[in-house]
Amino acid sequence: MNKKQSIKISNAVIRRLPKYRRYLEDLLNKKIYRISSKDLSELIGFTASQIRQDLNNFGGFGQQGYGYNVKELYNEIGKILGLDSAYIVILVGVGNLGQALANYAHFYKTGFIVNAMFDINPKLIGLRINGVEVMDVEYLEEYLSQNDIDIGIICTNKESAQDIATRMCKGGVKGIWNFAPIDISVFGNTILESVHLSDSIHTLTYYINHPEDYNA
Amino acid sequence: MNKKQSIKISNAVIRRLPKYRRYLEDLLNKKIYRISSKDLSELIGFTASQIRQDLNNFGGFGQQGYGYNVKELYNEIGKILGLDSAYIVILVGVGNLGQALANYAHFYKTGFIVNAMFDINPKLIGLRINGVEVMDVEYLEEYLSQNDIDIGIICTNKESAQDIATRMCKGGVKGIWNFAPIDISVFGNTILESVHLSDSIHTLTYYINHPEDYNA
Repeated sequence: MNKKQSIKISNAVIRRLPKYRRYLEDLLNKKIYRISSKDLSELIGFTASQIRQDLNNFGGFGQQGYGYNVKELYNEIGKILGLDSAYIVILVGVGNLGQALANYAHFYKTGFIVNAMFDINPKLIGLRINGVEVMDVEYLEEYLSQNDIDIGIICTNKESAQDIATRMCKGGVKGIWNFAPIDISVFGNTILESVHLSDSIHTLTYYINHPEDYNA
Repeated sequence: MNKKQSIKISNAVIRRLPKYRRYLEDLLNKKIYRISSKDLSELIGFTASQIRQDLNNFGGFGQQGYGYNVKELYNEIGKILGLDSAYIVILVGVGNLGQALANYAHFYKTGFIVNAMFDINPKLIGLRINGVEVMDVEYLEEYLSQNDIDIGIICTNKESAQDIATRMCKGGVKGIWNFAPIDISVFGNTILESVHLSDSIHTLTYYINHPEDYNA
């Protein structure tokens, strides 16, 4: 079931994989171990053909006349998403949201280990949160030169976010998960994934005021 | 500058509006009050034609040979997004993330007022967070029958999220901002906007493991 190396898989396909995995996890929780292509399609809300096409990017998993083996597909999608590995995480910007994400990432079952937190605020530096000491962000470069970091979470204000991202890229952080309300740039081999909470709530307020444009 | 009522504006266009507004806010902060269509396009990373088409959905704002009046466009997009109004918000699920969002929404400048919080955990019920008392979620229906709520934030676990959403819809909440890692359904006139944090970080881990698929 090797991925076809020659074809670049589209972002739209990749963003559907975590969703498939969520539904498969729910099925496993309900002790459903086998599902027809049609039932899976009705559950997730994509056509059976769409699901088959998406999964074919990774070798295909269903069997004609059998449907999908839920546990096998759940495990395979987890592997494709890299969730069979642990990730070493650092967090810069230890405000309310940063702390919540540190907890979220920490508790989330799939192996995200928060190893260091940084802030600029003297009131936070030296505090221990979930057993991890908050360090002065001045030491970020030094820390990155001594540690291999998979994921850097940015929860700073928008003014500091690009500077932190640049330092993370230089320090070899593999992926940045950005929550600052700004579009930052990455370079080198660093991957960027942003969550723009303000864009999301502003989309909600748009639809509240223009329900005629909303597709449920 | 009336919106053309006959045409339903696509979700893709609507999701670009908060981004335009963020860039315009940055320009205002830099005391830039006028920008050519070309410069705005280079800044945001969309073509000038794309920007013009997007804005034409709402009447169009640029002037040939002048470009855009930054403050006017910022204000108009704010109005289109409904950010000239305040929103009464309730929050269900007062964990770390819920508290962070309550603070975030509370402090965010655009008029989101958290009026009530609910949880099921006896240790949280009765606590005051930012001056708002956490109530037993048992009283959600009663509260909704007595108050007009614009936005209900759901930060419960995934097992409770649909039940809470259903009760919010029945109670006339205009929009739900869902953070539970599950696809919930809404009905009546309620709008749904979900932020799937786990999907986002799983997309990041995918790209960390498959950098060949990544488009910076």
